Amino acid sequence: MSVQEATQEHEVRWVYSFGAGQADGSAELKNLLGGKGANLAEMSLLGLPVPPGFTITTEVCTAFYDNDRQYPDGLKDQVSAALKRIGEQVGHGLGDEKDPLLVSVRSGARASMPGMMDTVLNLGLNDSTVKGLAALSNDERFAYDSYRRFIQMYSDVVLEVDHESFEEILETFKENQGYDRDTDLTANDWKVIIESYKEVVENAIGRPFPQNVDEQLWGAISAVFNSWRNQRAETYRRLHNIPESWGTAVNVQAMVFGNMGETSATGVAFTRDPSTGAKQFYGEYLINAQGEDVVAGIRTPQALTKQARIDGGSDRPSMEETMPGVFGQLVDVYKKLEAHYRDMQDIEFTVQQGKLWMLQTRSGKRTAKAALKIAVDMVNEGLISKEEALKRLDPAALDQLLHPSLDPSADREVIARGLPASPGAASGEVVFSADEAETLAKDGKNVILVRNETSPEDIHGMHAAQAILTARGGMTSHAAVVARGMGRPCVSGAGSVRIDYKEGKFSCGGVVVKAGEIITIDGTSGEVIMGEVPTLKPELSGDFSNVMMWADEVRQMKVRTNAETPADVQVAKDFGAEGIGLCRTEHMFFDANRIIAVREMILSDTLKGRKAALDKLLPFQREDFKEIFRIMGDLPVTIRLLDPPLHEFLPHTDEEIAEIAKASGLDAKSLRRRTAQLTEVNPMLGHRGCRLGITYPEIYEMQVRAILEAAADVGKETGVTPLPEIMIPLVSVKEELQMLRERVTAVAGQVEGETGKPIEYLVGTMIELPRAALQAGEIAHHAEFFSFGTNDLTQTTYGISRDDSAPFISDYMEKKVVEQDPFVSLDQDGVGELVQIGVQRGRKTRAQLKLGICGEHGGDPESIAFCQKLGLDYVSCSPYRVPIARLAAAQAALG
Amino acid sequence: MSVQEATQEHEVRWVYSFGAGQADGSAELKNLLGGKGANLAEMSLLGLPVPPGFTITTEVCTAFYDNDRQYPDGLKDQVSAALKRIGEQVGHGLGDEKDPLLVSVRSGARASMPGMMDTVLNLGLNDSTVKGLAALSNDERFAYDSYRRFIQMYSDVVLEVDHESFEEILETFKENQGYDRDTDLTANDWKVIIESYKEVVENAIGRPFPQNVDEQLWGAISAVFNSWRNQRAETYRRLHNIPESWGTAVNVQAMVFGNMGETSATGVAFTRDPSTGAKQFYGEYLINAQGEDVVAGIRTPQALTKQARIDGGSDRPSMEETMPGVFGQLVDVYKKLEAHYRDMQDIEFTVQQGKLWMLQTRSGKRTAKAALKIAVDMVNEGLISKEEALKRLDPAALDQLLHPSLDPSADREVIARGLPASPGAASGEVVFSADEAETLAKDGKNVILVRNETSPEDIHGMHAAQAILTARGGMTSHAAVVARGMGRPCVSGAGSVRIDYKEGKFSCGGVVVKAGEIITIDGTSGEVIMGEVPTLKPELSGDFSNVMMWADEVRQMKVRTNAETPADVQVAKDFGAEGIGLCRTEHMFFDANRIIAVREMILSDTLKGRKAALDKLLPFQREDFKEIFRIMGDLPVTIRLLDPPLHEFLPHTDEEIAEIAKASGLDAKSLRRRTAQLTEVNPMLGHRGCRLGITYPEIYEMQVRAILEAAADVGKETGVTPLPEIMIPLVSVKEELQMLRERVTAVAGQVEGETGKPIEYLVGTMIELPRAALQAGEIAHHAEFFSFGTNDLTQTTYGISRDDSAPFISDYMEKKVVEQDPFVSLDQDGVGELVQIGVQRGRKTRAQLKLGICGEHGGDPESIAFCQKLGLDYVSCSPYRVPIARLAAAQAALG
Repeated sequence: MSVQEATQEHEVRWVYSFGAGQADGSAELKNLLGGKGANLAEMSLLGLPVPPGFTITTEVCTAFYDNDRQYPDGLKDQVSAALKRIGEQVGHGLGDEKDPLLVSVRSGARASMPGMMDTVLNLGLNDSTVKGLAALSNDERFAYDSYRRFIQMYSDVVLEVDHESFEEILETFKENQGYDRDTDLTANDWKVIIESYKEVVENAIGRPFPQNVDEQLWGAISAVFNSWRNQRAETYRRLHNIPESWGTAVNVQAMVFGNMGETSATGVAFTRDPSTGAKQFYGEYLINAQGEDVVAGIRTPQALTKQARIDGGSDRPSMEETMPGVFGQLVDVYKKLEAHYRDMQDIEFTVQQGKLWMLQTRSGKRTAKAALKIAVDMVNEGLISKEEALKRLDPAALDQLLHPSLDPSADREVIARGLPASPGAASGEVVFSADEAETLAKDGKNVILVRNETSPEDIHGMHAAQAILTARGGMTSHAAVVARGMGRPCVSGAGSVRIDYKEGKFSCGGVVVKAGEIITIDGTSGEVIMGEVPTLKPELSGDFSNVMMWADEVRQMKVRTNAETPADVQVAKDFGAEGIGLCRTEHMFFDANRIIAVREMILSDTLKGRKAALDKLLPFQREDFKEIFRIMGDLPVTIRLLDPPLHEFLPHTDEEIAEIAKASGLDAKSLRRRTAQLTEVNPMLGHRGCRLGITYPEIYEMQVRAILEAAADVGKETGVTPLPEIMIPLVSVKEELQMLRERVTAVAGQVEGETGKPIEYLVGTMIELPRAALQAGEIAHHAEFFSFGTNDLTQTTYGISRDDSAPFISDYMEKKVVEQDPFVSLDQDGVGELVQIGVQRGRKTRAQLKLGICGEHGGDPESIAFCQKLGLDYVSCSPYRVPIARLAAAQAALG
Repeated sequence: MSVQEATQEHEVRWVYSFGAGQADGSAELKNLLGGKGANLAEMSLLGLPVPPGFTITTEVCTAFYDNDRQYPDGLKDQVSAALKRIGEQVGHGLGDEKDPLLVSVRSGARASMPGMMDTVLNLGLNDSTVKGLAALSNDERFAYDSYRRFIQMYSDVVLEVDHESFEEILETFKENQGYDRDTDLTANDWKVIIESYKEVVENAIGRPFPQNVDEQLWGAISAVFNSWRNQRAETYRRLHNIPESWGTAVNVQAMVFGNMGETSATGVAFTRDPSTGAKQFYGEYLINAQGEDVVAGIRTPQALTKQARIDGGSDRPSMEETMPGVFGQLVDVYKKLEAHYRDMQDIEFTVQQGKLWMLQTRSGKRTAKAALKIAVDMVNEGLISKEEALKRLDPAALDQLLHPSLDPSADREVIARGLPASPGAASGEVVFSADEAETLAKDGKNVILVRNETSPEDIHGMHAAQAILTARGGMTSHAAVVARGMGRPCVSGAGSVRIDYKEGKFSCGGVVVKAGEIITIDGTSGEVIMGEVPTLKPELSGDFSNVMMWADEVRQMKVRTNAETPADVQVAKDFGAEGIGLCRTEHMFFDANRIIAVREMILSDTLKGRKAALDKLLPFQREDFKEIFRIMGDLPVTIRLLDPPLHEFLPHTDEEIAEIAKASGLDAKSLRRRTAQLTEVNPMLGHRGCRLGITYPEIYEMQVRAILEAAADVGKETGVTPLPEIMIPLVSVKEELQMLRERVTAVAGQVEGETGKPIEYLVGTMIELPRAALQAGEIAHHAEFFSFGTNDLTQTTYGISRDDSAPFISDYMEKKVVEQDPFVSLDQDGVGELVQIGVQRGRKTRAQLKLGICGEHGGDPESIAFCQKLGLDYVSCSPYRVPIARLAAAQAALG
C-alpha cells in the first residue's frame, strides 16, 4: 500500500452519497446521517426513485462547533467529489450555463425537528444559469420565478436580509400592475422583480448577490450548521429532550420540480391515518406546485385517493383520478416502504413532468389513539411482534387516552393560560373556597375550584371539584401533585388570573368571572375557557386493553398506586394497580368530621387529653382502612403513618379557633399561643414523620390499631385476608425505626389478643432522606420493606424545596443548568446513586427485603426504567398513571 | 489433662482478687474491672496498704442485663473462693460470730460516675456478729452504731425501704431523750433503735431483716448491678456520653474503720491543687469518722497540711500535726502514686487505730486552668512529654479560659435559667431591639439584648450588645450560633422569660425587669442574674501560650476562622487563626448604610434597576474586604458570595416599607406584593446560594469585583499580596459552578485590565448538599478548593432544620434515639460518609484540591479528629474556638 493510499484509508469520511439505486449509507446510520439523510440512502438502496445527492455527517457539525465554527480538513474535497457524482447521474453540473444543476440544501438531525432549522432551495441559479434553466425547461416564467424564490430564500437564510423588504417589493409591483395573485406575473415581470431584489441585497450587505455557485453552496451549508444553535432550535431541543451534542447533518440533493406544469405535482402522505390509525393511505397533493406550497396553505391541497375525496365531500379531483399511473407507482412505493420499515411512514414526493420522485420517508407522528391502533393492527398483520409494539408506544402519551378531552370541533374562548398541570378537561361553576366546593358538589353541582394556590386544607374541596385552577405554582406545586393524584384536571400558575376572594370574582386580561359562572379547564393544554365546552370520553377497552395485557405479560416489576380515598383506590384497581404503594393517612384527617378531634389532640398539653381525642378518631380511621381493604382484597396495602407537621392541621381563622376552644375547653388565647409555638421556619425539615411518632407515640398507636382492627374485621367479613404494610416515614437513624417497630408489635400483640387471631402485616420504612439511604444496611435490620420516597429524597439531596423551586427551576432549565426538572424525572446521577446505595446495602442485610418507589417518579417512564435496572420489586404511582407505569415497566423489562 | 481441669481452664474469669501486695488484675484492666477495681489492684501491686478484696467484672454486668438479670454460671463459686481469700488475709470470715469479717460493696464503672450508683458498707453484721465486733473492737457503742448504719443503708439500697422512716425513729428517740447529737447515743440506745429499725423493715417487706450474711452479700451485689440502670445513672451517662454497654464492676472489700477512736481517721486528698494546679498536697481529713462523713458535710473536715491550715486561718490542727507518722506515710504514698500514674491523683484513705489504709486512687478532676498548669509543670518536671501533655488536655474545657467569667466569690441573684449557649459573662442595660442596642452602644453604654429569638436582621444589635438573652431557641438557634461566632455570651431558650416588647419589659417568675435596668448574663452556666456581677478576665499568656505552641508543633491541619467583621477577624488572628475559612458576605448587607440599597436591588424588576442599586453597594463591599485583607495579610481569605434568600433582607414594618418606597420610587403596595412573592415555604431549601447567582448574575459580579478591587488596592497599599478564595455556595450540579466560575473569571479579566496587574485568587465551592458530595468528582473539575459546609449538609442529610429541631432533638437524646446533637458533633456515619465521598471523589479528579470544613463542627474536637482522618487541609471555626481547634488538631495528629 502506498503512503497516499494509507492516508486516504485513514481519512475521516465526512460525506455520504446516495441516488440511482446506490448509497454509501443506510437507515442504520441515522446517528451519523440524521433521519432524513439515512432514509434517503435507504430509499436509494431499496431502488426507489430518489433524486441523487449527498449527506454531510453530524460529525462535521460537532467538529464545526468544537473548532470555533471551522470545517474539518478534507471536507471541501469530499463535497466537490460528491457534487461531481450528482452531476454524472443527472447529466449536468452546478453552475453549468447550458444545463445547470440545481440543488436543495436541508438540515437533518437524528431526531425530527420540523421547521426549526434552515433550508435553501433552487441553489445554483444565477444570472447565467437561469437562462439555461429557462431553455432546458422550456418555461421562462418557471425559471425566473424559481430564481426570485431562490434570491428571497437565500437572502433571508444565509445573508440575513429582512424578508419583509422582498414581500413589500412584490406587493407594490402587484398593486401597480393591478395583479391579484402571484400566478398573474409573467417571466418579464419576475425579471423586473429580480433586479429590485438584487438591489435590496446589495444595499443591505454592501456587495452584490453572490453569483458564484460554489459560494452559494457553502453559504447555505454554513447557514444550516449555524441554525443548529439558533434560538428556535434550542427551545425545541429543550422541550423535547434532544441533546445539543447530537448535531445536525446537511443534505444536498438535486432539485426536482413539481411546478413544471400540469403533469407535475407535489404531495405528502401517511401510509395510515395518523389521527385514527385506520389502515388507509392518507395524504394531500397539489398540481404544479413546490413542496413548500402544500405546507404554506396558500392553495388548498387535494386528496390523494378517490375515497378520501368522496368522504371529504370535495369536487376537486384526487391524484388517483388525475394521475392514475403515477398514483399506482406511489401506492407500490408506500406499501414497500411500510413493509420495509415495519411502521407507519410519513412520505414526501414530487412528480416532475410525469415522473415520480421520493424526497423523504420517516416514521410518521401520530396521536396516542392512532399509535395504539397501528401497533395492535401491525401485530395482527404479523408485521411486528408484541414486544416491538410495546417498545414503540410512548407511555406518557397514553395519558391523553385516560382522561376526557375537549371536543376538538367545538368553539372555545380562551381567557387565560397556565401550566398543563394535570390532564383532562372539565366544566363547572367557579367557586373560590374548598368548603363551598364541597357544599355545592353535595347539591349535585359541577364546580371548578379557583385558588391562588392550594394547601392540604383544601383537599376535600379539590376532591369535590371537577377541576382546579390556580394562579400560582408550578408543575409540581401542591395543586398539581394532588390533582394528578386524584385525576382531576388542573391548570396551575395561570399568572394573569387575579383573584379577589372578598368580592368572589377573578379577572384575567379584560375578562371578569364571578362565582357561579361556568368555565372550562383543559389540563392537557393549560387553557382556561369561558363557558362550557363539550368533552369526549376516554375509551379504555379494545386496543388499549390488548396492549395492557401484552405489557403485563412481559413486565417484571409490579405496579401499585398512591391512593387513599375509596374512589381513587377503585379507579387505580380498575386501571390494574396490584396494590397500594402509598396510602397517606393525613389526608383522612382533614374531613370535617375529624378535623376538630385532630386539632383537640394536637392542642392538648397532656397525654390523657391527646388519648381522649385519639379515641374519637380511631373508629373513623378504622372505617377508612376497612373500605380500602375491601376494595384491594388480598393485594398489599402500604399505609404510611402520620407524616406532616402538626401545625398543618391547625386553625387559622378566629372562627375556627373559637370552634376548637369550645370543643376542647381551652381558651382562644392559649390556642393561639400553641399554634404560634408549633409554627416552623422550614416545615419540610421539621417535627414531622416518625419524629411525631417518637414524641407522641399514642398517635401512631391509634393508627396501627385502626389498621390492624380493620384488617381483622375485613378478613372476617370477606374471608379474604388483607395484607397491610405499615410504613414509618422519614426515618434517618435506625433507632427511630427500631423503637417504633417495637410499639407496632406491641399494639399488634394487643389486637391479636383481643381478636384471638394472628394478623398478617409487615413493618417497613420510607427511604426518603440521604442519611436513610446511606444507613440502609443498618435500617434493614428492622424493616421488612423499603419504599423509596423520591420526592423528599430529591428535595433533601438537592436541598431544593418543591414548593419554592418554581421561580428558579424554570430559569435553570432555560440556562441549561439542568436538563430536566428533578421532581418530574428522577435525577439518576445524584438521587439515583442514593437509591442504588439504599438498594444494595438494604439487600445485603436482608436479601428478601421488598423494595419499591412511591415518589411522583413512580409514574415517570424514564424513572421506571431506572427502577428496573436497580432491581426494585414494584413502582407506585397515582391512579391515572397506573396504565402508563404498566407499559413503561414492560418497556423497561424489554430493555 | 482431666476433663475437670479442661473445664476450669476454659471457664470465664468473673472475679479478680487484690490485697496484700498481690492482685489478679492491674490498672491496665480498667475496662474489665472499672476504674476503682483496676486502681485497687494496681495499688496492691505497688505494695501499698490496700484492704483485701475482689472485683466482679463489668462483663458480669453485661451478661446480667443480656440474660434477664440472671448471673452467669460459675460466678457464685468464684465469689465464694475470693471471699475465702479475704478471710485468709485478715484472719476472719464473713458471718464468723467471734471474729466477723465486714465488707463494703461498691460500684466501679470504667468512667467515674460519682454518687450515681449504690454502695453498701459494714456488710456482714447481724444480731450475732455485732457482738463479735463489739468484743473484737472493744467498743460496744461503735459496733451497734455500725450495725444500725448497716441496717439503714442496706434497707434503703437493697430492700427499697423508705429511709425517712429510719430518720424519724432516730429523731423521735433523740427528742424523747433530750439528745442533741448522734454522738450522745450510747450502745444501749443504739440497741433500742436497732430493734425499731428491724420492725420497720419487717413491716415494709413482710419478712425480717436478713440475718444470713450470704443473702446480705448477694442482695448488695445485685443492688449495685441494678443501679447501673437507675434513672440518675442514665441521666449522668447521657450528659457525659458514657455508653450503657460499658456496664459497671462491683468491688467487695474488707472494711476498715476510721471511726475506731482518736487514733482513727479518714480523708481525701489531691496530689496537686485541683483548682489552681499548684504543686502542693491538698486535702481534708476527719478524726474518728467514716469516709461518708467527709463527703456528707455534717462535720467540717480539717486541713491535711500545716501550711494549708495556716493559709485557711483555721485553729483546728492538721493531720501533719496530729498524726505526723501516718502523715509521713501518706506523703510517701501520694508521691509514689503521682510518679507511678504520672498524673495528679485524687486519693481516699482511712487510718484505723494508727494504721494507714488506701481505699482509692484515680486521676483527679481539675479546672481548665489547673489542667493547663499541671500539664505544663509535669512537662517541666520531666514527668510527661509534651505530646502526653497535649493528649491529656480537654480542648473543650479551654473555652472556660477564653472568656470573662463571673467572680465566684460575688453574690448573685439568679432570676432565670436557660441554655448555656455561648460562654462568658457580661453585664449591661436591658434593651429589646437591635436598633436600640446599637444606638445605646454608640453612646458608650453596655447593653444586653433581650429577644424572644433573633434573626439575621438583629446581627448589628447582637454585635453592639455585651451579651444576648433569648426566651426561645436551642443550643444551635440563630442567637446561639451567631453569639458563639462573635464571642458574645448568650443564654438561649430561657423558657420562663416572657417579653412584653410594647411595654418594654420582661418578667420571669415573679420578677419584672424594665428596659434600662442592669442584668448579668452567664453564658457558661446559663444563668440570668439581676444587677451587675464583677467578672474576672481571661489569662491567655504563660501556660496557655506554651501549650498552644506545642500544639502548633505537632498538628498537621491548619486552623482558620469563620469571621467577617474586622473586630472578629482581629480576635481570631490574635488567637492564632491561619486564614479565614468562611467570610459570610450577607452579614455585611444588614448595616444601616446599605440595607436600603440592598432592598432597592431586590425590589427592582429590571436588571438596570438592580445594577444601579448594586453600584451603590460596591464601594461599601470593597471597603469591607480591604479591612479584612489588611488584617490577614497574605493569609488565605475564603469569601462566600451571597447565600441567604433575598426575602431575609426585606422590610416588614410599614415604616420600613415607606422608607424604601421613597428611596426606590416604587409604591408601597407593589413593594408589599413583591415581598409576599418572595416569601418561601422552606427558605432553607429555597432560592438562595448560587441559585441567586444564576438568576441575578449581577449580584455576584458586584461582589467579585469588590473582592478583587480590594485585593488589588491592599496589595498596592501594603506591599503584601492578599489571597482571596472566592467561594460559590449551595452548588448541587456542576453546571452551576462551571457557569458562575466563568463569570468570576470574566470579572477578574476586567479588573485585571483596569488595574493593569494580574490578581491572585482561587475559585471554589461549598460542599453542603448531599448531591454535591456525591458529584464531587464532576464538581472538582471546576473548583480549586472545597469547603465542607457541614451545617447545611447535616440539615439536608438528616432532613432536619436546625431552626426547628430543638423541640424534638432533646426528646431524641432523652429517648436515646441519637447520642449527640448532630449539629454539635459531626454525625460520622451519615454526614461523615458524604464528606468522605466528597473528599475521595474530589481528590481523584484534582489531586491538589484544597479541602477544609467551615461548619460549626470545625470547632468540635471529635469532629476535628474525624477531619484529620479524612485528610482535610484545614478546619475553620468561630474566633473564640480557634485555640480549641489548634489543640484538638494537635491531638488528632497524635492519634
